[in-house]
Amino acid sequence: MSLSKRIKTLTEGESDGWDIFIRARKMIANGEQIIELTIGEHDIGTADIILQSMYESALSGHTGYAMVPGTDNLRDAIAKRTVERTGIATTRDNVLITPGGQSALFAAHAAVCDPGDIALYLEPYYATYPGTIRGVGAKPRAIQTKSIESFQPNEDDISAASKGAKSLLINSPNNPTGTVYSRSTLQGIANVCQRHDIWLISDEVYDTQVWDGQHISPRCLSDMAKRTLVIGSMSKSHAMTGSRCGWVIGPQEAISHLISFATHTNFGVPGFIQDASVFALERGISFEKEVGAPFKRRREIALQLLNGQENINLIPSQGAMYLMLDIRSTGFSGDDFANKLLDEEHIAVMPGESFGASAAGHIRVAMTVDDDTFTKAIKTICKFAKTTN
Amino acid sequence: MSLSKRIKTLTEGESDGWDIFIRARKMIANGEQIIELTIGEHDIGTADIILQSMYESALSGHTGYAMVPGTDNLRDAIAKRTVERTGIATTRDNVLITPGGQSALFAAHAAVCDPGDIALYLEPYYATYPGTIRGVGAKPRAIQTKSIESFQPNEDDISAASKGAKSLLINSPNNPTGTVYSRSTLQGIANVCQRHDIWLISDEVYDTQVWDGQHISPRCLSDMAKRTLVIGSMSKSHAMTGSRCGWVIGPQEAISHLISFATHTNFGVPGFIQDASVFALERGISFEKEVGAPFKRRREIALQLLNGQENINLIPSQGAMYLMLDIRSTGFSGDDFANKLLDEEHIAVMPGESFGASAAGHIRVAMTVDDDTFTKAIKTICKFAKTTN
Repeated sequence: MSLSKRIKTLTEGESDGWDIFIRARKMIANGEQIIELTIGEHDIGTADIILQSMYESALSGHTGYAMVPGTDNLRDAIAKRTVERTGIATTRDNVLITPGGQSALFAAHAAVCDPGDIALYLEPYYATYPGTIRGVGAKPRAIQTKSIESFQPNEDDISAASKGAKSLLINSPNNPTGTVYSRSTLQGIANVCQRHDIWLISDEVYDTQVWDGQHISPRCLSDMAKRTLVIGSMSKSHAMTGSRCGWVIGPQEAISHLISFATHTNFGVPGFIQDASVFALERGISFEKEVGAPFKRRREIALQLLNGQENINLIPSQGAMYLMLDIRSTGFSGDDFANKLLDEEHIAVMPGESFGASAAGHIRVAMTVDDDTFTKAIKTICKFAKTTN
Repeated sequence: MSLSKRIKTLTEGESDGWDIFIRARKMIANGEQIIELTIGEHDIGTADIILQSMYESALSGHTGYAMVPGTDNLRDAIAKRTVERTGIATTRDNVLITPGGQSALFAAHAAVCDPGDIALYLEPYYATYPGTIRGVGAKPRAIQTKSIESFQPNEDDISAASKGAKSLLINSPNNPTGTVYSRSTLQGIANVCQRHDIWLISDEVYDTQVWDGQHISPRCLSDMAKRTLVIGSMSKSHAMTGSRCGWVIGPQEAISHLISFATHTNFGVPGFIQDASVFALERGISFEKEVGAPFKRRREIALQLLNGQENINLIPSQGAMYLMLDIRSTGFSGDDFANKLLDEEHIAVMPGESFGASAAGHIRVAMTVDDDTFTKAIKTICKFAKTTN
């Protein structure tokens, strides 16, 4: 029986970039000791107080169908937080709650792209981006950013690729590079979107994890609210990755159609998870800082250890849970470096190539193990880079 | 800014059929006493023991990303249950866990239909069916079933509509009619699927709620496993509507592509909800009977009260939580009857027209209020039908 062309070509037969991760997991299953610096998941679980609030909500009876757009309380909480942090008028009518950020990314593309439409995204990119675009039947078109420009996208490069495009997907703070887009980068992006009449889909799931500079949501730039869909999530900011609670923020007309799309694609998010999310958001910025603190601390450790290294150049790691290391001067590709590092030193990192050709010759290090293990791993990587070329 | 044509035409500008439900909710908000027999939701919440098991799973640390295909435990539990109930070989590789049955319906259509493909469904239909098909870019084509044939679909009618179609969506036990498809009905459907090389998408979310006859999954008919995608869910069988946990069962190749689709559309289902689902499934058939018992009991009440009524003809209500009443001999449309019933008797039911033209002149009664209220409501409906024509 033949399946749809769409589903058969979601990843275009490419590796999804997770080969090393899978190989490391197999080595672990075989009893080997591996330091895993691969996936973007906190080394803590969701806080007990949040889980308790979830349980109380469920016990109190919030176990039936929740309203498809999201509960009024959670939509209001997201809207309030958005107003406080961006100054842009936002009400619950601008917010759709989704089962996770990935679902929000998919829905946002479905809202603005028809089959065959061109959707832009930037390299290096989070693994699911091109497949998400193909999933709605649209055509992904990558725009490269450059290591030498710290992977800050460049207005001219985006503009050159924008002809005929319907949307542009950006992500700041960025996974995998750790780059936080500057105001001038974002203004350049806004200029292109306005000039070419393109929707901006702004993935801001790392918005609370900025170590250098400031997170700016492009929705707050002049005249951008009407053409911007912001993707958010509880996952990274509140260590609630497994709860699958995210959102899209956008113009009311788009959200009203997205509510209908949600009715037909998932029928809403568990009410008790939404209640727990409200509880978590009410903990305020101090809680978000607490969740982000280990990454901030480990980044400082890495900056000290990497300072002055000849064969490793750290891309300014301004935010998120990752370090992007340029290891081209070792003469290795990211793939070869990462494979050799795994075999010889039992440290698993992601090759830059997993995130697109722009990051070839780099490795991505997730700062997701305890400080001592992290310190040991960075020291080993430095020594390895020095001796292995 | 212009949105995609797909999202703007999801419901083809039609009413989604929920006008009366919304009107009733507004009346309730205004302080009026309304008996609601509209939506398919248990009058009990999720059992405390299930919620406790969910909490324990979360506290024990299952709060990070779960595996996208579903946990091994839940996939194995669904596979085992399927083997026990259908006899067809099924392993975890045949199972994808989804955030609810609606998500499974959407994914199944995405797996077999490309943009522009024709996807068949039967009238009367569950409200989201045509929009789900449009959501994947395919074209919905309705096939009418007949009140006089108790809404059992007819091989010839389906065959006549099948030319060029990619898929056929069926639902037994059926919402809204309460009809349970007979073996000969299902064999006729299987014949058409084989003759026209069509995928069968079988929505079996009410499989544990059969009051008369037997639920047969068409996947177990000869040579059908390779072309059938079964949709299941914890919602109706275990009163876990708000937990949003469902699944697709199908050929391994289809499931492997659907896992990639899930990676790009939702990134999996909360692990603690999956653990709670395993716990609930382990309660076995006796628990499922307990959840279904109120509907079985209320159906008996209705059979007695409706017996011999001149103006109301009960479609044999063999399963699910609904009664479909033919009220054509009152001279009213389902819409008019339901509106008048709401205004004059403060009872909210769904007009048959909400589920397609095949059910015009009918009303759907959800058996989702306590026995006394339900008894009172059915008596009032009988009296109303008698005096109002």
